[in-house]
Amino acid sequence: MQLSHRITHLLDGGSDGWEVFNRARAMIASGTPVTELTIGEHDIRTAPAILDAMHRAAKAGHTGYASVPGTPALRDTIAARVTDRTGVPTTRDNILVTTGGQAALFAAHMAVLDPGDTALFVDPYYATYPGTLRAAGAVARAIPTLSRHGFQPQTDALAAAAPGARSLLVNTPNNPTGAVYSAATIDAICDTCRNHDLWLISDEVYYTQVWDGTHITPRARPGMADRTLVVGSMSKSHAMTGSRVGWIVGPPDVISHLIDLSTDTTYGVPGYIQDAALFALNEGRALEEEIAAPFRRRRALTEAALAGQNAVRLIPAEGAMYVMLDIRATGLSGEEFAHALLDTHQIAVMPGESFGQSAAGHLRVAMTVDDASYEAALRTLVAFAADRAHASA
Amino acid sequence: MQLSHRITHLLDGGSDGWEVFNRARAMIASGTPVTELTIGEHDIRTAPAILDAMHRAAKAGHTGYASVPGTPALRDTIAARVTDRTGVPTTRDNILVTTGGQAALFAAHMAVLDPGDTALFVDPYYATYPGTLRAAGAVARAIPTLSRHGFQPQTDALAAAAPGARSLLVNTPNNPTGAVYSAATIDAICDTCRNHDLWLISDEVYYTQVWDGTHITPRARPGMADRTLVVGSMSKSHAMTGSRVGWIVGPPDVISHLIDLSTDTTYGVPGYIQDAALFALNEGRALEEEIAAPFRRRRALTEAALAGQNAVRLIPAEGAMYVMLDIRATGLSGEEFAHALLDTHQIAVMPGESFGQSAAGHLRVAMTVDDASYEAALRTLVAFAADRAHASA
Repeated sequence: MQLSHRITHLLDGGSDGWEVFNRARAMIASGTPVTELTIGEHDIRTAPAILDAMHRAAKAGHTGYASVPGTPALRDTIAARVTDRTGVPTTRDNILVTTGGQAALFAAHMAVLDPGDTALFVDPYYATYPGTLRAAGAVARAIPTLSRHGFQPQTDALAAAAPGARSLLVNTPNNPTGAVYSAATIDAICDTCRNHDLWLISDEVYYTQVWDGTHITPRARPGMADRTLVVGSMSKSHAMTGSRVGWIVGPPDVISHLIDLSTDTTYGVPGYIQDAALFALNEGRALEEEIAAPFRRRRALTEAALAGQNAVRLIPAEGAMYVMLDIRATGLSGEEFAHALLDTHQIAVMPGESFGQSAAGHLRVAMTVDDASYEAALRTLVAFAADRAHASA
Repeated sequence: MQLSHRITHLLDGGSDGWEVFNRARAMIASGTPVTELTIGEHDIRTAPAILDAMHRAAKAGHTGYASVPGTPALRDTIAARVTDRTGVPTTRDNILVTTGGQAALFAAHMAVLDPGDTALFVDPYYATYPGTLRAAGAVARAIPTLSRHGFQPQTDALAAAAPGARSLLVNTPNNPTGAVYSAATIDAICDTCRNHDLWLISDEVYYTQVWDGTHITPRARPGMADRTLVVGSMSKSHAMTGSRVGWIVGPPDVISHLIDLSTDTTYGVPGYIQDAALFALNEGRALEEEIAAPFRRRRALTEAALAGQNAVRLIPAEGAMYVMLDIRATGLSGEEFAHALLDTHQIAVMPGESFGQSAAGHLRVAMTVDDASYEAALRTLVAFAADRAHASA
């Protein structure tokens, strides 16, 4: 029996980039200790107070079908938060609650793309991006960026990719690079969208994790609110990765159609999870800062561990829970390095190639183990790289 | 800014059929008591023991990213259950856990249809079906059924619709009609799929609610397991509607591709909800029968309330939590009747037209209030119909 072209071509014939991750998981399952620095999962769990709020809501009976667009209270709270933090007037009618940020990314592209349309994304990219665009029927077109630009997309690369496209997907603070897009980058992105009449999908799920500079949402730039769909989530900001609750912020007419799409594709988000998200948002900035603090500390540990050597170069790590390391001085590809590091030292990091060709010869390191283990792993990685760099010199 | 054709055409220009439901909700919100017999929501909430199991899992730390295909334990348990109840050998590799039955329906169609392909469904149909097919890019083609056949699809109608189609969606026990497909109907469906090389999507979410006859899964028919995707859910069987957890049973290669699709479109189901579903399934048949019992009782109440009159005819109500009533003797359409009944007696039922033209002149009554209120509402409905039938005679 023939399957659809779309589902059989999600990976477009390439690997899914998760070989090192899968090998690490297999080693752990077989009893080998591995220092796991692969995925964007906090080393803490969701706060007990949030789980208690969820349980109270469930026990109180919020276990039936919840409102598909999201509960009014949660939509209002997200809208007020967006208004407060971005200055863009935002109401309930601008908000759709989704089953996580990933579902929001997919739904946003379903809303603006027809099959065969071209959708732009920035390379390096979060691993699911091209598959998500292809799942929506789009032709996924990468915009390359350069290590020496801190992986910030440049005006010329944006302009070269834009003709004929319908949408542009950006992510700041960025996974996998740790970049926080500068005002100049945001301007270049918005100019490209206006000049080429593109929808902008802005993935801002790391907005609470900024170490240098300021998070800027392109939706706040002149004229952009009408063409921007912002993807948000509780996963990273509140250590609620497994709860699968996120949202889209967009123009009311788009949200209205997206509610129809949600009705037909998910039928909404569990009510008790929405109540837990509401509780967590109402905890305010103190909780967010507490969740972000370990990554802020480990970013500093990274800078210290990499000082005074040349084998590993740190890409400016301005936000998010990752650092991107340039290991080209070793003469190894990211994949070769990551497999060798796993074999030799039982340390698992993601090859840059998992996130696109722009990150070849790099590693993404998730700062997701306790400080001491993290620092030790990083020092081992640096020593390993220095040996290889010396050998290849 | 232009939206996608697909998202702006989910309703295909028609109404969404939820006017009576929305009016009833507005009346309730404004303080008017309404007997709500519209949607398929149990009048009990999820059992406290299930919610406690969920809370234990969450507190124990199952709050991070869960395995996207579903936890091994839940997949194994669903597979064992399917093997046990259908006789078809089924393993973990045949199972994908989804964010509810609605997401399973959508994903199944995404897997087998390319944009522009024709997807068949049976009229009357669950309200989201055509929109779900259109969301997957398909041309949705209805197969009409007749009230006098108990809305069971017939060989000639199936054969007439099949040429050029890629898939067929069926639902037994049926929402909205209460039909449980007979062995002859299942045979006709399977023959149609074999003769026209169709994928079969079999929505069996009401499989624990059968009052007459036996639930037959077409997947157990010769040669059908390779071309059938069964949609399952915890919603109806375990009163977990709001928890949004369901599954697809299918051939391993299809499930493998569907796991990729889930990665790109949802990133899986909360681990603590999967643990709650596992707990609920392990409670065995006693819990399912307890959940189904009120509908079994109310089906009997329906037959009693409708005895000895001709204004309202009961379609054989063999399963699911609904009864379908033929009110054509009143001379009113289903919509006219439902609006008038809401205005006059504050009783909300769904017009048959909400579920397709085959159900015109009918009403779907959800048996979802306590027995006394249900029986009183039904007697009022019958008296109201008798008055109208008399007036129009």
